[in-house]
This record gives sequence, C-alpha cells and structure tokens, in this order.
Amino acid sequence: MRFIQNQLLKKETLANARKLLEGKWLQDSTKLPLLFEEIIKPHNRVCLEGDNQKQAVYLAKGLCKVNPQIVNNLHIVQSCLSLPEHVEVFERGIASKVDFCYSSGQGARVMNLAAEGKIEMKGIHTYLELFSRYFLDLTPNVALLVAEKADRAGNLYTGANTEETPAIAEATAFKDGIVIVEVNEIVDELPRVDIPASWVDVLVHSPTPQMVKPLFTRDPAKIDEVKILMAMMAIKGIYAKYGVNRLNHGIGYATSAVELLLPTYAESLGLKGKICQYMVINPCPTLIPAIESGFIKTICSPGGEVGMNEYVRAHADIFFNGSDGSQRSNRAFAQLAGLYAIDMFVGGSLQIDLMGNSSTATIERMTGFGGAPNLGSDINARRHSSDTWLKAGAEYAQTQDKTLLKGRKLVVQMVETFQAAGQPTFVEELDAITLQKKMKMPLPPIMIFGDDVTHIVTEIGIANLLLCKDLAEREQAIRAVAGYTPVGLAKNPQKVAELHKRGAIQYPEDLGIRFSDATRDLLAAKSIKDLVEISGGLYNPPSMYRDW
Amino acid sequence: MRFIQNQLLKKETLANARKLLEGKWLQDSTKLPLLFEEIIKPHNRVCLEGDNQKQAVYLAKGLCKVNPQIVNNLHIVQSCLSLPEHVEVFERGIASKVDFCYSSGQGARVMNLAAEGKIEMKGIHTYLELFSRYFLDLTPNVALLVAEKADRAGNLYTGANTEETPAIAEATAFKDGIVIVEVNEIVDELPRVDIPASWVDVLVHSPTPQMVKPLFTRDPAKIDEVKILMAMMAIKGIYAKYGVNRLNHGIGYATSAVELLLPTYAESLGLKGKICQYMVINPCPTLIPAIESGFIKTICSPGGEVGMNEYVRAHADIFFNGSDGSQRSNRAFAQLAGLYAIDMFVGGSLQIDLMGNSSTATIERMTGFGGAPNLGSDINARRHSSDTWLKAGAEYAQTQDKTLLKGRKLVVQMVETFQAAGQPTFVEELDAITLQKKMKMPLPPIMIFGDDVTHIVTEIGIANLLLCKDLAEREQAIRAVAGYTPVGLAKNPQKVAELHKRGAIQYPEDLGIRFSDATRDLLAAKSIKDLVEISGGLYNPPSMYRDW
Repeated sequence: MRFIQNQLLKKETLANARKLLEGKWLQDSTKLPLLFEEIIKPHNRVCLEGDNQKQAVYLAKGLCKVNPQIVNNLHIVQSCLSLPEHVEVFERGIASKVDFCYSSGQGARVMNLAAEGKIEMKGIHTYLELFSRYFLDLTPNVALLVAEKADRAGNLYTGANTEETPAIAEATAFKDGIVIVEVNEIVDELPRVDIPASWVDVLVHSPTPQMVKPLFTRDPAKIDEVKILMAMMAIKGIYAKYGVNRLNHGIGYATSAVELLLPTYAESLGLKGKICQYMVINPCPTLIPAIESGFIKTICSPGGEVGMNEYVRAHADIFFNGSDGSQRSNRAFAQLAGLYAIDMFVGGSLQIDLMGNSSTATIERMTGFGGAPNLGSDINARRHSSDTWLKAGAEYAQTQDKTLLKGRKLVVQMVETFQAAGQPTFVEELDAITLQKKMKMPLPPIMIFGDDVTHIVTEIGIANLLLCKDLAEREQAIRAVAGYTPVGLAKNPQKVAELHKRGAIQYPEDLGIRFSDATRDLLAAKSIKDLVEISGGLYNPPSMYRDW
Repeated sequence: MRFIQNQLLKKETLANARKLLEGKWLQDSTKLPLLFEEIIKPHNRVCLEGDNQKQAVYLAKGLCKVNPQIVNNLHIVQSCLSLPEHVEVFERGIASKVDFCYSSGQGARVMNLAAEGKIEMKGIHTYLELFSRYFLDLTPNVALLVAEKADRAGNLYTGANTEETPAIAEATAFKDGIVIVEVNEIVDELPRVDIPASWVDVLVHSPTPQMVKPLFTRDPAKIDEVKILMAMMAIKGIYAKYGVNRLNHGIGYATSAVELLLPTYAESLGLKGKICQYMVINPCPTLIPAIESGFIKTICSPGGEVGMNEYVRAHADIFFNGSDGSQRSNRAFAQLAGLYAIDMFVGGSLQIDLMGNSSTATIERMTGFGGAPNLGSDINARRHSSDTWLKAGAEYAQTQDKTLLKGRKLVVQMVETFQAAGQPTFVEELDAITLQKKMKMPLPPIMIFGDDVTHIVTEIGIANLLLCKDLAEREQAIRAVAGYTPVGLAKNPQKVAELHKRGAIQYPEDLGIRFSDATRDLLAAKSIKDLVEISGGLYNPPSMYRDW
C-alpha cells in the first residue's frame, strides 16, 4: 500500500479517466459512475464531503451507482453522515469502514449497520480531530467535494458556506490524492477564488445547487420565561462576573435567550463593551439585535446560515467576508479559534451525571458530538492570558490550595432540570455507559467531561464547580441545581447550605434577580418577524419560519 | 475603531496607494516606506511575517524606514521575533505592543525593551493559539508576507517552506485587511498556486530570495553513547511497549538518536511496521535512513529544511507535496495534527522540577515555546481511540482506581541529568518562577505542565508517571532518574525501590539493555556524509555541515 498515493499512480489513474473528460470537466454526466470506477480503487480512503450544513449530494448519488464488484471496501473519512446516500454506500457494499464525526438524521441506521457488522466504525471524532488526521494517517485517496461555482480553469468559489472544503482539498491535493468537485454554476470570472484550480483534478457539473439547512435558526417566539431567567442569571452571574469577551454559544434556546437579552438586560447593567465582543458562532439570526446595538465586534463562523447572506454582506466589519463582499466561513479555523482563542463555551446537554460529565448520546441514538468536545474543553496548552481566564484559574487554584500555574476556560452547561415530563436532565448514570456496553465501544461516548465543566446553570441556580474542593462537593453542587429530579431530591441540605454560603451555589435572589422580572418583554426580538425588521429587511428567513 | 477594517476604508486606503502601484505591483522599490505610510495607520495590528524558518526580510527593512510621526503605535502580531528589524520597529517607536510566540535570537533585547516599557508584551502564545486569535480578536489590519514566486496577476507560490503564510493571508484578506507580499521571482506561470491572487492586494519585488536557516539539522557525529542508551531505552520501554505509530519528535539529539536507531536497533527488535509509521515533523535529515528502510509511511511537516528539497521531492509517497512535486508544508495543519492526531510527543527541556513541570526559560532569556506546549499536551477533547492512547489511559486509570473514560497522549521528556557541568536539569524550582517575578508576569513561563508528562527518560532510566498514585510518588519517581543532581541525591531509597518494583521506574537492565551495548555502531548514519550517501545524493547539506 506504500505507493498507492504516489504521483505515478495518480497520473496513470487520471490518464485512464481522460477519455471521459474534456480538460478537467466530465463531459457526459451520465458517465459519473464510470468515472468513479476508473478513479476510485478498492480499499481507498474516500472523503465524500458531508459537512455540517452542505453535502456533495450529486457526487454521493453517483457513488451509490458504481458497481460494487469494481469499487468496494472503501474507507469513508468524512465529518457527517447525513444523506441517505452516505449510508447506502455501506448497504450496497461499496464502503465498509468509516471514520466520522456526526451522523445527523442517520444515527439509528448507522448503529444498526454497525451492529450487523456492515460498517467497521473505527472512531468518532470531533471535527478538528478528523481534519487533523486528514494530514497524518487518514489522508483521503479521493476527495469528492462540492463548490458553488467554478471558472473554466477549475478555480473554485465555495461561497458563504465554505465550511470544510479547503481543509479536505488541501490534505488530498498535497498528498497526490485526487480531488473531484461538483459545481452548480460555471462562470467566466469568479467573485473570488476560495480554492485554486491547481488543487483540483476533475470537475462535474451538478444540475442542482447545494441544499443548506437552517440549522442555526431559533425562533424567539419559542423562548419562555424559564430560559429568560436562566439567561439573566448567566449574564449577571457568569458573563459579567468574569468579563467574558471571547466566547462560543451552542445552538440551544438558552443561549439564544442570552443573545436576545444583550441589548436589553445586559445593556441595562452597563455591560456593553465589556462582554461578548468576540464570538465564534454561525451567523445565527438571534444575534441580529446584539449586532445592531453594537454589542458584538467580530464573529468568526464555522459555516453560514440560510437567509443570513445579505445581512452578513452588509456587516463586513463584524464577519469574515471575501473581497466580493460575501461570507467566507472556515470550519477548521473557527473550531481552532473555539479551542484556543475563546475564554468561555456555553452549551447544553441531554444528560448530566453527578460528576458533571454530559452526553447527548441516548440508548436509541449515537450521533457523535461535532464540535462540542473541542469548543467545550479546557486546553492545557494555552499560554496567553486574559483577565477572564486568569480569574477562573485563580478561583480554582485557591479552592485547591494550589499555586496559580494556568488559567481556566469557562465551560458552562445551561440546562433545564427536565428535558420533558419524566425525563430528568440530571442522572445517576449516563445512557452513554449502557450504550458503550451495547456497542462494545472502548470508551463511553461522553460529550464534555465533568473536569472541564466550570458552571452549570439551571432554573434553580448556578453551580460554580470551580469552588468545589473535591468530587463529593461537586456532586452536592450539581444536586443543588437539579431541582425536583431524583438527583436533586437526594441532595444533602446541610452540605448544600454550606456550598451556598461559600458562593459555590447561587440562587436567583443571590444575584438580585426575581422570577417575576424574567418576562418576554426583555427579549430584543420576540419573533422571526422582529428579527427581519431589526435587520432592516436584510435577514431573509426560510419560508418555514414565515407566518406573515 | 469599529469600522477600521471595513471595506470602504480598505478601498480608500488602496486608492491612496494607487499612485505608487502598477496594477498590484509597487513600481519603484525605493518608495516602499512611502507605500507603508499610505497603507498602515497608527494603532493598526500588523503581522510582519516572521515564521520559525522564513521571514519577510525585505518588508521588515522597509517598515523600519517609515516615519514614526506617521506610522506609530503598531500592535505587532506575529509568531517569531527573529530579525534585528523585528525589534528595531519597537526601538524606533513605530510599534509599541506585541503578541507573539517566540523570540529566537532576540530574546534578551526583547526582554530589555519590555523592562524599559518600550514594548507592551500582551501575551506569549503557542503557534496554533496565535493563528486562532488571527481569526477572532487579533486579526491583522495589514499583513506583510513573503512568497517565493508570483505570477503577474498576483497568485503566489510559497514553496517548500509554506509554513504560516496561508493562515495569515486568509485571516487578513477575509476581514478586509490589506495583504502585502514580497516575492523574489515574478514568473508567467507558477509551478502551483498556494495562495490565490484574490487574497493579495499589493506585491513588492524583493531583490533577495528568502533566507532559510537549517534549524532541524542534527549532525550524527555529535550523538554520543549516552544519547544512544537513552534512545534504546525509549524504543524498547516506550515506543515498543505502547506500539506508538503516530508521533512528533522534538529537535534535540536524543530524538535524532531514536531516528537513527530505527533501521538498526528497532528493526532488530522486529518493530518495523509496528512503530513510527506516521510522524508530524520537519524533514529532518536524520530521518533519511528510517525513510529509506521503509519504517516511516507519512510525514506531515510544519515547515521545510535546508538541503532536503530534492530528497522530499523524490519521496512524494511520504511527504505532502504539491502537483509540481515540491513540498507543501503548513504549520497550522501540522500543529493541529500534532495536537489531535498523534499518540506521543517526545521532547527535551533545560529544566524539570519535582512535579515534572518543564521550561526552557532561564533568568537571562525568555524566548517562548513555539509549538512544544501544543504538541506536548494531552487534550481532553480528543474522542477517537487508538490502542496506544487507550493503553496509556488504562495504565493511569488503574493507578488512580478510576473508571476508564479517556485515553492519554504519551508525553515524554528525554533529558540527560545535567545540561553541562554544574548545571542540573532537575531542579527544586524552575527559573521560570524567578523570571515570572522579575518580569511581573501573571503566570510562570512553563513549557509543558507536569500533569501532561507521562514519562521522563534519562541516562539513569525511565520514570513512568502514569504509574504514580500521587504527587509524592511522582516526586520520588523523578528523583529516581535524576542521577547525581542534588534532586537525585535527595531521593528516598525505600520509596524508589517500591516504585521500581511496581515498574514505575525502569533501569536499563530491567529492559535487558547493557550500557556496553550502546555504541555508535548502532547509528544508521554516523555523519552528515553518511546521510548524503544513504539519500542517494538527494540530500544536499548546507556548506557549514560539509567537511569533505
């Protein structure tokens, strides 16, 4: 296998495919499966671009049509298994092995195939982890990518949803792999070049544009008073306390509530210019009021969001846009900024155990975690300081009676005590443990480790785990904010009172917040329509979000 | 400041500079300072490309010539302060603030300027950390970069030493910053495009080619028997024990010794195909014998190495090369692979304390750490498994009586007990602590934290810190391998005997290695000349390394 990727083999392979091509372009699109049969060898590592938001749909359909006698045993290395075709390649015997991050929508099917032995699941990764392995031991032999436009020479424009395309293309092209790209539009001159033609070997004209789903749109109408209460506590008790200026928000309603309280509640506390100036986050529509009010200075996006392109274009001072004015997202660099450059991650989870370990894996569904473990981990390798990071580190060092050697990233979980009636968020044991046994995995699929978590916010209050001396105290602090769940009811009232006295637990009243203050009037936008208005008509929500 | 980077300002600035340009090219190179005075505004963040190996020398000289009345208070954001000009901009009052990684050669001058208040040193970073901040809160307003060649349109070829140029260019270009590039050669057609012209605003023809220093060349003639003994212990006691296949080596002689023992000693132990197949490392000449013998499958390089270009070109199956056949290095992705995709880091240090904390900072010199903290840190966010990682994790979990929730990256320090006569490597307190007080830094400049280190190898033996139950045991394990240093002499013999019995300390005889076996005959190459021969004449060492 040593020379499988070398230049001679690449040249020979492309020479064999040349009869189907005109320059770099596939002449007859019905010959796509034939092209794949010429280019893709059995046991090849193949990245069939499946990003969080966009996928190489046309190439995926084409790959499903190859003859499994010719193309088989592929080792798929890609972020997301989200299209039916991503699973079909295994069902049809074209592929047999996978290294991936996330199986949105296909979780159950993937698990069944794994249980039947039709997929050898080598590993579940965070995004950045998989990208990094593209440059070491999982370099694709063939990358099947998607771009919006190409010029005739094959330069690519990947547009607002650039996401992962450049990282995959670079790893593949510079290790003599073969880069095949589907594009919907062929133009004489590109608005900008995202990937140079010399990284691209074959181009295929796809009749359909990329389909992008509105994954990051949260309707303000769905934000209730409990979420608003939690957001108020978080803003006053965490964002303001630590002066958090560089952060990432997860995609739940709790963080949307925070975003919509910035120009109202947070501004009334005098926090403008003091918190939330630099964010690693997709262009979520609920950010619009905070952007308009001048709260946010810079947004580094891993991807795009449906309907936000014109708004982003008009805010080149905030977003990373190209010379053509449109957004350039890059998941590799945004996840990197989310690991190394932020002082706080705020996310949610389906389950949290007594040590603070959390997971979104349930017994029915093992989807993977995307970027959460990366964004929500403290990193021992960070060496630059910020006041926020030092303050969190000092709190922890003091609790542990240790000399301050490093700061801490704030890792906050904002969850309600119950996910639904009878479904407590706080549990004695994560479903991940059962799932590990069932799937015979070497490790339980934990999303964020308890030792990385610094704060848990529920409707009951804030548990500050930095102020807990040991695991027994951490357990009591978690029970204290777990409300009427069995975990919460089993708390030790005396120990909890002691932790409360020390500030390791804070209730709304400790922060001067009354439940009656938490009204929807505080939301800077109460509906999608409000967001459109505040955006000056630049936000163009997908029709499913329009009821007017 | 909110709109300082926006598109209008960029257009206006470039319009003012247009009188000096023909297309994107500076017409008269004597006008370079004038060009800077038109483009660079006071308080701008400027990246004056200073990579580990290459620097934008011509632009640096030009920047030193601007009028400080016009261009001043710049905030320099760049990896390395290595040229005299990198310090001169502060002495001349052109710049006043710096965020950087490493001050190779200029350490003392930088420290003095900081002490005099002429440099506001905001933070010392690891490489990846600074790159990540380019995408969040330290985006350059102006980037002054270097490339080998450009075509007339301004597409760039950065060549074998691509290093950091694409990451800086991307962050700057996509936030409406201005990208100015010096190139030594202007050609009609580039061998390959590393950076598209649409990311570049201004080009300057530099009369001199890039100067690259042979930072990664270690002469086998200087490897003595002590290093060979340590290398044998490491290979048998760590590489073979854990089956380490994905790793990074630091640049000391100890790891060079390991590299030169792979085709001899390691092969005699039957380890070919079992260890060292995937490496994140510069193309170090001492890797040649291991590559030739088929030990190494893939090398992901952060940069290049002088004299290795033709050798790398001939080994496209091993290295990441472009379609033109020459190397494409990329520090951002290589450091990422070094964080997330490797199972082991092996490095050295000037000092190690009783907890295993290490630092290369001394009282006279504060240089920064480059990539070591990143490569040599365990990362809580990793989610994919490997046998090596699980084995290390299981050892630790068992010692701590904990359930296995995650693996461990092996972080190995290979050091002799003394750096020089009277200069012990093992110390009660790191100089970093004194330096912290002297420089009034918030944290001591520790390179790698003790809690990340898993093994320390000296000429005395191997301390396996994964098998130490607590800090007291860790201290004794470290003292046990510290030899005749004061730290070593103060060991508790009874406790050490107990740790030895448990395998937490291993002496050469425990591994079946006799000191008399450690001879230079084991080295696959004994001189630079040997390396040239083994490379088939493809390695072309710089003249300073030629004595024949």
